[in-house]
Amino acid sequence: MSDWLRQRPAATPAMLEVWSDAATIRHALAFEAALAEAQGAEGLIAADVATRIAAVARALTIDPVMLAEEVALAGTMAIPLVRHLRAAMGDDGGQVHGGATSQDVADTVLVLQLRDAAALLIADAARITRALKVHAVAHADRPAVGRTLLQDALPIGFGLRIAQWRAGIAAAAAQVEAAAAGLTLQLGGAAGTRCGMAGRGEAVAGRMAATLGIAAGPPWHARRTATAMVASAVGILIGATAKMARDISLLAQNAIGEVREPVIAGRGGSSAMAHKRNPTGCQVTLAAATRASGLVAGVLAAMAGEEERGLGGWQAEGPMLADLALIASGALAAMAVVAEGLEIDEAAIARNLASAGIGDDIGESVALVAALLKEDG
Amino acid sequence: MSDWLRQRPAATPAMLEVWSDAATIRHALAFEAALAEAQGAEGLIAADVATRIAAVARALTIDPVMLAEEVALAGTMAIPLVRHLRAAMGDDGGQVHGGATSQDVADTVLVLQLRDAAALLIADAARITRALKVHAVAHADRPAVGRTLLQDALPIGFGLRIAQWRAGIAAAAAQVEAAAAGLTLQLGGAAGTRCGMAGRGEAVAGRMAATLGIAAGPPWHARRTATAMVASAVGILIGATAKMARDISLLAQNAIGEVREPVIAGRGGSSAMAHKRNPTGCQVTLAAATRASGLVAGVLAAMAGEEERGLGGWQAEGPMLADLALIASGALAAMAVVAEGLEIDEAAIARNLASAGIGDDIGESVALVAALLKEDG
Amino acid sequence: MSDWLRQRPAATPAMLEVWSDAATIRHALAFEAALAEAQGAEGLIAADVATRIAAVARALTIDPVMLAEEVALAGTMAIPLVRHLRAAMGDDGGQVHGGATSQDVADTVLVLQLRDAAALLIADAARITRALKVHAVAHADRPAVGRTLLQDALPIGFGLRIAQWRAGIAAAAAQVEAAAAGLTLQLGGAAGTRCGMAGRGEAVAGRMAATLGIAAGPPWHARRTATAMVASAVGILIGATAKMARDISLLAQNAIGEVREPVIAGRGGSSAMAHKRNPTGCQVTLAAATRASGLVAGVLAAMAGEEERGLGGWQAEGPMLADLALIASGALAAMAVVAEGLEIDEAAIARNLASAGIGDDIGESVALVAALLKEDG
Amino acid sequence: MSDWLRQRPAATPAMLEVWSDAATIRHALAFEAALAEAQGAEGLIAADVATRIAAVARALTIDPVMLAEEVALAGTMAIPLVRHLRAAMGDDGGQVHGGATSQDVADTVLVLQLRDAAALLIADAARITRALKVHAVAHADRPAVGRTLLQDALPIGFGLRIAQWRAGIAAAAAQVEAAAAGLTLQLGGAAGTRCGMAGRGEAVAGRMAATLGIAAGPPWHARRTATAMVASAVGILIGATAKMARDISLLAQNAIGEVREPVIAGRGGSSAMAHKRNPTGCQVTLAAATRASGLVAGVLAAMAGEEERGLGGWQAEGPMLADLALIASGALAAMAVVAEGLEIDEAAIARNLASAGIGDDIGESVALVAALLKEDG
Repeated sequence: MSDWLRQRPAATPAMLEVWSDAATIRHALAFEAALAEAQGAEGLIAADVATRIAAVARALTIDPVMLAEEVALAGTMAIPLVRHLRAAMGDDGGQVHGGATSQDVADTVLVLQLRDAAALLIADAARITRALKVHAVAHADRPAVGRTLLQDALPIGFGLRIAQWRAGIAAAAAQVEAAAAGLTLQLGGAAGTRCGMAGRGEAVAGRMAATLGIAAGPPWHARRTATAMVASAVGILIGATAKMARDISLLAQNAIGEVREPVIAGRGGSSAMAHKRNPTGCQVTLAAATRASGLVAGVLAAMAGEEERGLGGWQAEGPMLADLALIASGALAAMAVVAEGLEIDEAAIARNLASAGIGDDIGESVALVAALLKEDG
Repeated sequence: MSDWLRQRPAATPAMLEVWSDAATIRHALAFEAALAEAQGAEGLIAADVATRIAAVARALTIDPVMLAEEVALAGTMAIPLVRHLRAAMGDDGGQVHGGATSQDVADTVLVLQLRDAAALLIADAARITRALKVHAVAHADRPAVGRTLLQDALPIGFGLRIAQWRAGIAAAAAQVEAAAAGLTLQLGGAAGTRCGMAGRGEAVAGRMAATLGIAAGPPWHARRTATAMVASAVGILIGATAKMARDISLLAQNAIGEVREPVIAGRGGSSAMAHKRNPTGCQVTLAAATRASGLVAGVLAAMAGEEERGLGGWQAEGPMLADLALIASGALAAMAVVAEGLEIDEAAIARNLASAGIGDDIGESVALVAALLKEDG
Repeated sequence: MSDWLRQRPAATPAMLEVWSDAATIRHALAFEAALAEAQGAEGLIAADVATRIAAVARALTIDPVMLAEEVALAGTMAIPLVRHLRAAMGDDGGQVHGGATSQDVADTVLVLQLRDAAALLIADAARITRALKVHAVAHADRPAVGRTLLQDALPIGFGLRIAQWRAGIAAAAAQVEAAAAGLTLQLGGAAGTRCGMAGRGEAVAGRMAATLGIAAGPPWHARRTATAMVASAVGILIGATAKMARDISLLAQNAIGEVREPVIAGRGGSSAMAHKRNPTGCQVTLAAATRASGLVAGVLAAMAGEEERGLGGWQAEGPMLADLALIASGALAAMAVVAEGLEIDEAAIARNLASAGIGDDIGESVALVAALLKEDG
Repeated sequence: MSDWLRQRPAATPAMLEVWSDAATIRHALAFEAALAEAQGAEGLIAADVATRIAAVARALTIDPVMLAEEVALAGTMAIPLVRHLRAAMGDDGGQVHGGATSQDVADTVLVLQLRDAAALLIADAARITRALKVHAVAHADRPAVGRTLLQDALPIGFGLRIAQWRAGIAAAAAQVEAAAAGLTLQLGGAAGTRCGMAGRGEAVAGRMAATLGIAAGPPWHARRTATAMVASAVGILIGATAKMARDISLLAQNAIGEVREPVIAGRGGSSAMAHKRNPTGCQVTLAAATRASGLVAGVLAAMAGEEERGLGGWQAEGPMLADLALIASGALAAMAVVAEGLEIDEAAIARNLASAGIGDDIGESVALVAALLKEDG
């Protein structure tokens, strides 16, 4: 029972892979492996048992559909997953997952997925900003109609508009990077005190973080500021990208015709009108923006959870963060293609300007383009 | 590449089936079949071709993963789907999808899925209200601590609280039913005028609606009031159900202990504390509520689309409505189980009331329970 | 310390009056007056005391700024307000507010304000639908460019687009009316049991409701379905109105020029470009839509309050419902003016159609206009 | 016509002053004064005229209620405000506002108000974190029941819970400070090119920014990343504060009784139950959180505005940012009082722990408190 027709068109295959069952299970087992290794190194469990747990965990295969049923019943992923791992370990099964709790697994998996997601988003944002920079420079001094409140206003350098798109996306991508860097391993145990770690909790956490390639820090299971910051940064990145999409879709109207999305075989057609060339990349991006703000709102609403583990707040965060990352991936990938292949119709720009009868004084557009491009590298 | 671990725990298998690729494709092909039959009956295409299109459409198998890739490229589902159907029809392929457009398919499929979703939600809401009615009557006159602002207040009849839960859920479910009844077939063609139907558009639409088991009406592709009403009704139903979950989770605190979720083998355990009995049904429901309000906001934000077919608004509606229905299904199913098996600890209720030292005057609780139960059947 | 520059441009004076301090205090005192009269009639307090409370309450003047400070301290409006009223009653002050609680006052005041707000909204919606009906009929058969995904598509009857706007607004206004009709007096007392009413609570509530001109029903203080339904209905009405504003603003672009907002002295100018004619009514309406969906989300998020009186949920509802009504008033009033004075440029419509080269087949536009106008009266 | 009963209880007087009409007008006139002085210094207008404009602007009094009516008509504040200023200047009126546009004024005023708002919020957040630090240290090693999913779990150091609240609020406040520091003067003119500044636009902007005490940068009128970052940072700060409020309200339940809000004369009473002590500070804060997430969503939804000046997006930002700042002020001020006077009942903590029968192993709570306090100064 798949739902690919709903998921795929809004997201890239790479981002879908980040949030796939396979990745989730792989990360969860990596958590257990890293925990065992760290506990072995710190003398909490026997070294050979630790090595074996790690090996078994990293090799274990779990059917995701079956596991999903078990998770739906249990109310948490770790319980059935640990049960499978313990079964695979036989008599030493009791050494698995020692001192950890379900949310430790869930939150650390979330961090690993957000780290991978952020890397993809930043890479696609960089594709966009690189491509836009070229257009901004090339058209910095080209006089064009500037439009305010959907009315012709005064001339602008066509490249200034593009440099503004770029500056917004660059600032937002930098914020995503900063927010993702603020995520840390979660290891707190049942009530977030790292009891059951024989006083070696900080050392265990440090080792695990190093193994998993993320930062360490105190438990944050009931303190959701860092994940909320990632959510809002991704939401803002989608918004900044949608600004570019909004403008391109308006500039591509037949009566204006100053830009067009690149031709991509099989894309942008109409089932009823074969001649149409639709702004499909903008469509994907604007649809992402329509969804994004409510998802950010949901993550913020989840912050005020109850005591040492909330009921119904943080559990909703995972799906919402996944959706944000997924739709962001689709939007950024779509606009990367659009940015790289954007068709700019210089004749139409000139024609529209002449029709508007507003002269061609573009003020300090050229200097502003330079300033905007310098600002963030 | 599945994502069952994220989808399944929040939704019922039956609701996942409603929104599955298989159902989506089946409904889309049913649309094409119904269109062909109606056009055959109205003389727009030859009767035998119509019959053959309908037969081929209803028998056609399309690989959803492959189709999803084609959809991601095309920017719309109908284009590749119609291409597959035309290919299967051979020389008569050109008779397929005549006068229709992509959004006609997408919106009608959405209506079919919302109809099926609403039926599931209403059935589970009825399970809850039936079960709560029994508890409300049984405990109408049982004095219990009423609590306001999370402080002990004055006594209430324990059943009055339950009757209030029930009244909220019943009213919200009735609204979902009414909103779903307001959905109609979408058939407008390229610009929503039913051109290309030789003046028989209304008759074609009427026949198609009858075949598909939904109501007919003018095209509504660019007028999203009806889908927005369904979204908000489902959001309110989730909110009303979450009210019940909030109270049960508070009453189940160890220091209060007036109710407990029923024991379900494998549910509500803790990976770190084997003895715990967690309110897992409430967790599912409160998590749904955390997500729901942002999804409703997204659907409302999508209403002001551009001209005869918006860019990025309505395209985002489908995934958000699907998510709303999915999380509503999980919440209602979870609370149906909770309502049917709710453990009410009469001794704890009495003990807490005595400790509070607030007497036992429950005012008109019994009459209010009767009034609340009468109100909606 | 006023904040009129933020409030007024988005709302009508009449709606600001509905939610003004003066109205709030007047309604709260009317509640106390109606309560006293009903309790007098039911023998709960002496008839002459009841008469005097009602008279004093209806004549009492309270400085809103001072009261607001007291409210900010107390955490509820009723406590200081009742104190003022009791002081004005002298020795009989103890007979005031008997059996009622703060939320009874707050929620009933909210109902009275929502009733008045709904009446204003429905009246302005009717102005819009009446005006649009005239345009829809007049231009039903005028061929115009239909546009999909911001691209020229196929011709439509120009009046069909207008009839679609109208149908959305009419359906949404009807829903606001139905939702407002579902609101009832709140009278529950400290824990919602109507204790302290000597078993006459239902009778008291019935008399109060009649006096105040609203419907009666069981207490609903902790069951927020009815207010959530009003919120979402108003949100949908804003969305439907914003659809009209979106289209008008796009059609009014200089390069298209098919419609213009009416000239209003002093409106729509630019501080930098004196010649501009900005779509200011659309601006007000689209700004309302930008705010509305998050406000609806907030009201839905407030539904799952705690036990017999939530902490932080319903208290947030009042300001959000007020904001929804306020921005709806501004949007509807603005679009009423736009609808009544809409300038439709028939030459531009014809010119654009000719340029598009898409013929002039408007399909069943005329019949669809008729069907849409018939649907809701 | 005031609405103080709705505004004041949710916000501090100081923050209401920041967003008052008086402050708005003062900032707008300060913009015009700084513009004139900068243009005088750069030789764009005569020095003596510049001096006089600045003097007149800083001394001008405008009735806010009258101005609000003019703004409601004009659709923008600057047009009537500049008209008043020009009238006061007599023959030199034409030198006022040269090269600037309405949005330059509106956005710069917004920056000035956000700067002042952020300063207030950061100060109150510091009050909270200072007070919580004392409690966290004092109770770091006090064993208490840790609670997960609203069920007793394992012991924690009572101060660890407090240190976690503090860490969340400190991180969020730092983000507000960083986001506010990213705001810059807006000066772009009619289409954002700084035309009409004779090539001295950057110099003019630099001088203006220095005069107004904010940073300079290229125009950002159509690039809303910086304001969106402020909005989400404030929303996250509210969420982090609400986490503390949620826990305090749960811990203050009569059946738990581990903390109580401080006694404040006149606060926290009940109109029906004189003996109650309600968590009113928590109420204010949780109500703010209920509203905040939808407001953040609205600001994000406003990002994708149209071309060089959007229609209905950024115009909605101002009221939403004001509301965010206002409710944040009320929440932080309320929790500062709560933090500073929090009553911690050591006997109740011990009693609850003994009842829970979960021992007293608080793991690494003490070390974690130290780590959390060290993290952010």
